[in-house]
Amino acid sequence: MSENIIRFTRGIPPPESFPTNELAECSAAILANDEKNVLQYGNAGGYPPLRSLLAKNAGVKESRIAIGQGSLQFSDTLSRIFIKSGDLVYFEAPSYDRVINIFERSGAVLKGIPLTQAGLDIEDLSFRLMHGERPVLFYIIPDFQNPSGTVLSLEKRIILTELAEKYGFWIVEDNPYRKLRYRGDEIPSLFELNPDRVIHMSSFSKLISPGLRVGYLILPETLASKFLNFSEDTYISASYLTQGIIYEFIQKGFFERNLALLKSLYEPKLDIMLDALDHEMTGFGYWNKPDGGFFIGLTLETNLEMDRLILRSQQAGVFLSDGRGFFCEPTQKCFIRLPFCALSSEEIRMGVHRLGNVVRELLQAY
Amino acid sequence: MSENIIRFTRGIPPPESFPTNELAECSAAILANDEKNVLQYGNAGGYPPLRSLLAKNAGVKESRIAIGQGSLQFSDTLSRIFIKSGDLVYFEAPSYDRVINIFERSGAVLKGIPLTQAGLDIEDLSFRLMHGERPVLFYIIPDFQNPSGTVLSLEKRIILTELAEKYGFWIVEDNPYRKLRYRGDEIPSLFELNPDRVIHMSSFSKLISPGLRVGYLILPETLASKFLNFSEDTYISASYLTQGIIYEFIQKGFFERNLALLKSLYEPKLDIMLDALDHEMTGFGYWNKPDGGFFIGLTLETNLEMDRLILRSQQAGVFLSDGRGFFCEPTQKCFIRLPFCALSSEEIRMGVHRLGNVVRELLQAY
Repeated sequence: MSENIIRFTRGIPPPESFPTNELAECSAAILANDEKNVLQYGNAGGYPPLRSLLAKNAGVKESRIAIGQGSLQFSDTLSRIFIKSGDLVYFEAPSYDRVINIFERSGAVLKGIPLTQAGLDIEDLSFRLMHGERPVLFYIIPDFQNPSGTVLSLEKRIILTELAEKYGFWIVEDNPYRKLRYRGDEIPSLFELNPDRVIHMSSFSKLISPGLRVGYLILPETLASKFLNFSEDTYISASYLTQGIIYEFIQKGFFERNLALLKSLYEPKLDIMLDALDHEMTGFGYWNKPDGGFFIGLTLETNLEMDRLILRSQQAGVFLSDGRGFFCEPTQKCFIRLPFCALSSEEIRMGVHRLGNVVRELLQAY
Repeated sequence: MSENIIRFTRGIPPPESFPTNELAECSAAILANDEKNVLQYGNAGGYPPLRSLLAKNAGVKESRIAIGQGSLQFSDTLSRIFIKSGDLVYFEAPSYDRVINIFERSGAVLKGIPLTQAGLDIEDLSFRLMHGERPVLFYIIPDFQNPSGTVLSLEKRIILTELAEKYGFWIVEDNPYRKLRYRGDEIPSLFELNPDRVIHMSSFSKLISPGLRVGYLILPETLASKFLNFSEDTYISASYLTQGIIYEFIQKGFFERNLALLKSLYEPKLDIMLDALDHEMTGFGYWNKPDGGFFIGLTLETNLEMDRLILRSQQAGVFLSDGRGFFCEPTQKCFIRLPFCALSSEEIRMGVHRLGNVVRELLQAY
């Protein structure tokens, strides 16, 4: 066991990214400005000034916005509103493990649309639909996907929204990393391409702090009141105090400044990881070269067993998540999610180096 | 329509009860003292220092505590863990409408154990159990009940916990008003009487502020990990920032001071409402004379129709909740929940006076 363990496990932000002083300032400000509302009961739509701001930014009516604890709870509510046992739900394969669990719990049948080296396998998707599969919804993370880092191309976004329209399924677009683009041009979101067919989720967890537990959802007009009533019946509302703090954070101009700081903090880490992968992994598999986000997904094109890889890596001082958990169906793939934002440059280099050594060693043993 | 409407509807605290300056101080303190934890992801058990404090106060292991958004969300999680469609759940009749909805939604069959003028009808409960009814759980608010104000006697608490033990059902004790006792002696909680058979819920919504959205649950050892895993799978954790603020609030001694202030604010309102009821309602029905809490429940012993009473009251400038919503089964009772904490003395007197006029007028018309 190496002395300093390197954890390629959870995708959390580093403590040095937290805008603590600004949050203290915003907390004092909102309590001074609007104590009567942020300390009182509210409704599930969310703290009205923040809700109004989010609606304005998205160009939708306030009634279409729900503010809550984050996309996981939103997914749970969606699963309870939409899913009857046996209903079909599409995921990318791989996708965000916690949301896979949520929909599995609801009794849905989950099918994975492969993410290949070329991105989402849109032909597989079309084929399934043409041959009669009828999903209720497709849960997708189009920008800097968790766990793979993939960005869905504009062309595929257009095809996907057309397929959703044609075959009558909802697209649930989970987009917490979208604003963490370190370079290159933004691609229109699925929501922007078809705001009546797409349920758009985002969160302040990766853009300000996860401890606030504030995320938001933009719903098609036809679904909003049903969703909000169910939410209110479940938890009344999420904290208006933390929502009010975020409102002040945006109003005071801290949000844009913080976003710029996050980008300058994370982009060099991304580059170091890309460089390390080039050095250590060339020939063993493929990975994306994302321009943002928290993760690079490494797929080993070897016949290594995941269990063995995890065990040996751990012995070599690198902790990995079990990549199979990101797939909604059984897989033989040897997939590794590599989060880079909370690690130092040295840890990234050392971690990928150790992982490279493990892969080489295991391949020699075969 | 009278000019100033008096609302006997929701049981919310008045804005003047909010300890705003202290909360601002606590927010600054927790961000200065423990930013790395309160701004980060956490687990569903809750912010460890607060969890540890609550465990110590209750004399239980930390692993038995869950901190979350409040008793409604806890009830939802309990209903999802415990209830299969058709399972039997007992409520007091009347009880808290939102929790009735939660368990109805889960597919449970709900039966109400009457709250009479003499309190919980423990004979009805015994009779049902002796004749073979087997509830999964009994949801009960033993102290200053919502909506009736009832306090369960020690004798009945003992019998209830014995029945739960004998017939193998869980008691879910929701106790957010317990500490709001304005006079008289505390009675042991159901949890204190049988900590292995009782799930105890409480909340800071009525003791500090609802906008923080922080409540907690004490679970029997055997249920804790199942409950916590389900919660983490649903929302990861509730906000650690608001939990940290409450931790500081307690540590700085603000909690006890605030509680004393709340009592001195609410007790005179309770007395004014009791006095007004004596003047206006004697001969028309019965009500509790609680020593604390937020509510007095008035049961009219007349054959007035609820719909007519609500409509005429509204015309007379008094808004009422539909009392039938507090019953988990259809009822002919004419029940009125009277919250007093958020109204001024003048509003309480005037509201009960108007209500008295409406009742007299309607009875004459019969």
